Amino acid sequence: MKFCSHCGQSVSLMIPEGDDRKRHVCDGCETIHYQNPNIITGCLPIHEDRVLLCRRAIEPRHGFWTLPAGFMENGETTEQGALRESWEEAEASIESQGLYTLFNLPQINQVYMFYRGTLSDLKFAPGLESLEVALFAEEEIPWKELAFPVVKKTLKHYFSDRTNDHFPFRSEDLIYPRLEGQNKP
Amino acid sequence: MKFCSHCGQSVSLMIPEGDDRKRHVCDGCETIHYQNPNIITGCLPIHEDRVLLCRRAIEPRHGFWTLPAGFMENGETTEQGALRESWEEAEASIESQGLYTLFNLPQINQVYMFYRGTLSDLKFAPGLESLEVALFAEEEIPWKELAFPVVKKTLKHYFSDRTNDHFPFRSEDLIYPRLEGQNKP
Repeated sequence: MKFCSHCGQSVSLMIPEGDDRKRHVCDGCETIHYQNPNIITGCLPIHEDRVLLCRRAIEPRHGFWTLPAGFMENGETTEQGALRESWEEAEASIESQGLYTLFNLPQINQVYMFYRGTLSDLKFAPGLESLEVALFAEEEIPWKELAFPVVKKTLKHYFSDRTNDHFPFRSEDLIYPRLEGQNKP
Repeated sequence: MKFCSHCGQSVSLMIPEGDDRKRHVCDGCETIHYQNPNIITGCLPIHEDRVLLCRRAIEPRHGFWTLPAGFMENGETTEQGALRESWEEAEASIESQGLYTLFNLPQINQVYMFYRGTLSDLKFAPGLESLEVALFAEEEIPWKELAFPVVKKTLKHYFSDRTNDHFPFRSEDLIYPRLEGQNKP
């Protein structure tokens, strides 16, 4: 950030009075521009004994498999965002069964959330950001071609919890170095 | 947003190619400026049969009672943010017992999270944003002087769940009109 989005003048990185961390503050109108973490919201879509994965058509991790997920938008709930992303990336309609996993990724200022849900029907197809979309049984999961640790962890939890038919909410902090060119975990 | 924070030129509200909603796009460098929801993170601090509340020294809801909470910062986890806010607003040290409630407030683009936790000791005091800090038994809670619905709902869940000594994670969407001058729910 170099300029004030409110008045267009330059900004300086400084600690405002009464604060304890550096913010971008406008040299002209003195507006303080806060920068805060983003939420990535997505689904773990289930059909019988299989889960739906999307092969990414975009960077980062082009060609790797992921669960449908993306940045939560203003004006929607975390669950609405998860269902919207499932539609956009996989043209899949999901009936949500509630929030299942939450991951903090403080190095990249992101909080990931996955909703567990069942496919409403077997109509699905790759959206603009996907190369292909497919259902996988546990023994078919391409573990070495998954895009992100949060995807692998959510799938591992699911297959483990499925043996008890009990799916408690799970939360974890992932703290590891940022990979080159990777802005999604 | 009127100016590009990257190059200082004017921005226009338009739907970028491949997108489906209006964004602020720079008329010069064409940077797309996304705006996304914020996370408010806080604690439900417990000591034996009492909970800690803070009386707000700031607007909105000056003088009303709340749980310690505030905007999650970059570089921290949701739990770290909850503990930080408890220290800043109540000088209270908390041992977290995990995420307890999550509320979506899509009208104001906020997601609220409260961690249940126990006070590490009985040292607490009002921080800069609090007029006073005190412990309340269930029958002492100032229900009509609580600052926000998310606080009331979290307390109601807690006292109900306490009867079973079982505190499942709870999520709710709060969809109601924005009150004048209120930027916290």
